[in-house]
Amino acid sequence: MKRLSTLGLGLLLSASSLMAQNVRPVTNLRNGQFPQLTADNRGVFQLKAPDAKEVIVDIGGKKYPMTKDDKGVWSATTDVLMSGINYYFLYVDGVQISDPASETFYGCSRMSSCIEVPYAKGDVRFELANVAHGETTMRRYYSKNEGAWRRMFIYLPPSYQTDLSKTYPVLYIQHGGGEDERGWALQGRTDIILDNLIAQGKANEMIVVMSDGNCKDFIKELTEECIPLVEKTYRVKKDAANRAMAGLSMGGIQTLNIAVAKPELFQYVGVFSSGWFTRPFGNNPQMNAEENYKKLAERKDFYNKQFKQFYLTMGGQEDIAFNNCKAMREKFDEIGIKYKYFETPGGHTWPVWRESLYQFAQLLWK
Amino acid sequence: MKRLSTLGLGLLLSASSLMAQNVRPVTNLRNGQFPQLTADNRGVFQLKAPDAKEVIVDIGGKKYPMTKDDKGVWSATTDVLMSGINYYFLYVDGVQISDPASETFYGCSRMSSCIEVPYAKGDVRFELANVAHGETTMRRYYSKNEGAWRRMFIYLPPSYQTDLSKTYPVLYIQHGGGEDERGWALQGRTDIILDNLIAQGKANEMIVVMSDGNCKDFIKELTEECIPLVEKTYRVKKDAANRAMAGLSMGGIQTLNIAVAKPELFQYVGVFSSGWFTRPFGNNPQMNAEENYKKLAERKDFYNKQFKQFYLTMGGQEDIAFNNCKAMREKFDEIGIKYKYFETPGGHTWPVWRESLYQFAQLLWK
Repeated sequence: MKRLSTLGLGLLLSASSLMAQNVRPVTNLRNGQFPQLTADNRGVFQLKAPDAKEVIVDIGGKKYPMTKDDKGVWSATTDVLMSGINYYFLYVDGVQISDPASETFYGCSRMSSCIEVPYAKGDVRFELANVAHGETTMRRYYSKNEGAWRRMFIYLPPSYQTDLSKTYPVLYIQHGGGEDERGWALQGRTDIILDNLIAQGKANEMIVVMSDGNCKDFIKELTEECIPLVEKTYRVKKDAANRAMAGLSMGGIQTLNIAVAKPELFQYVGVFSSGWFTRPFGNNPQMNAEENYKKLAERKDFYNKQFKQFYLTMGGQEDIAFNNCKAMREKFDEIGIKYKYFETPGGHTWPVWRESLYQFAQLLWK
Repeated sequence: MKRLSTLGLGLLLSASSLMAQNVRPVTNLRNGQFPQLTADNRGVFQLKAPDAKEVIVDIGGKKYPMTKDDKGVWSATTDVLMSGINYYFLYVDGVQISDPASETFYGCSRMSSCIEVPYAKGDVRFELANVAHGETTMRRYYSKNEGAWRRMFIYLPPSYQTDLSKTYPVLYIQHGGGEDERGWALQGRTDIILDNLIAQGKANEMIVVMSDGNCKDFIKELTEECIPLVEKTYRVKKDAANRAMAGLSMGGIQTLNIAVAKPELFQYVGVFSSGWFTRPFGNNPQMNAEENYKKLAERKDFYNKQFKQFYLTMGGQEDIAFNNCKAMREKFDEIGIKYKYFETPGGHTWPVWRESLYQFAQLLWK
């Protein structure tokens, strides 16, 4: 039947059997009837597994046991979910699976299910809107440094394909651990956020480069492969005043490291839900804060002048990076490194990182 | 632990524990040790599921029971697999899941696991190569016809971003049932095929538009939404001599329908693994062959002159669309509609459709 469906059955749309008032999140597959969201944004999950002994839904780290009906369909309704995108999994007799009814996104080091929970009425910052749209392009390249084929996703703003005389500033932005170049393009809704900000005159048009931070040497990869390829291929402004660097979590540490090591490249730095570890992390010298604090202290005035924005964001005290970032801020205060700090509730999650980009993008090129 | 991994553990690469000589297909996640491929391209699959009673791997419609070791790890080795990309699933006690170690691709109406099996040595047609690369861009648009936000993927050839005075012909190409606009962009390797053909001088540079064929009225969607948006946004040639239309399976029927209904739009038509159904299919008039044969017969000379290429491909007799296509070819012969026919073994699968595009692209704009 799988094969037959390829030939024609896809044309026949199955009748919707939604529970009254519940909505299907946009992250469902087109024929995925569940999960659903109640009017107050509780998630309602279902899975047919007649022979399973135990099925659990795990969303944002919280586990909900599901209950089986007489047809072998397991169900659970969660607490109220945070607006924005949330990773989730199902466990069937201990095997962690993605929900067959959901789109999948690379996160938590695997293809994960996600549920996109609508934002409050009137909050259109992160929703597709009737504005001029840019696009997100996928560019493949062979990295000599990594000895592998890699990809970048690149947001090109609304005027890019039609106003061919224009050049643009560039924001380089990195995903977190267990994610890749798709994180900001899909979970992050980078294009939607920028399209909306640009339409409202809150941000200048810019290009946003989302590269794959899973590499042996991120600084080498970004400076020897990504930046040269971008500057050779797209109509970009090529000076520090028109380059920004940002990242979340693991990508935030990469951002901190490159900001200290190559400050001449960028005048804008954004570090979301991150901070150097307070003690050496494994054998990776780039995780070692002390080296970096020393360099910052030695050339404090230079760094303070070079970075027009040094912007730190945090998903509240419930963010797993809160303490690392707090220790880092205290150290910056002690050394005399200037920064801005923005906190929003939500923990170590994509809704927080979308909000971080939304805020940071408005500070750029001004 | 899921959350912790986001912050830094992703930097630590786990040691590879590959079985001697086996390779990990490029469709594995970066930390996915299985599936593996033996030297003769048998798939070796594994899943840890200590509490499961039965685990099966289903690849290309063929089911292999897996056997459990004393650690609760289930394994199976398949027959020799066809080169190219193959959909597969695991069944755990009857629940169809995607393999947690694999990338997922939208096919069979869900996010499916895939295994990319290497091509024969020296066959570089479908492999990433050291040639000039184009890119694949994702464009969102609001469709008034469908009342929904939709996406197109658009291949832009190597010179597109740097030779700004150039304009290009456009191939519109459609996926099959249970797939969407991602099919040709990811499973189909459209960019890789075109980059390679262009580098070898076997195809002219062109733009390829991959739209979402899951809509109420495909002809309306393509002609009133997709084509106008493409022709307004990109540097394209805007006449029938520079437009081609193609599709596979369900997309092949859509291609046939639009070729008959709007022949003035395209001078090149490609129909892969498809053909009208030999009897009416449900209530969908677009599936009805007789209407179309009548129109073709009435203006036979016009159609024969209009279509510089009317190209039909088939994945051998094992292709589920073989009989539909055979009946259609016989009808074309009877009516006097000219076409070319190309057959390659492999059935109703992506390896066949990659080959179909490879052949068809070489016939365009010549």
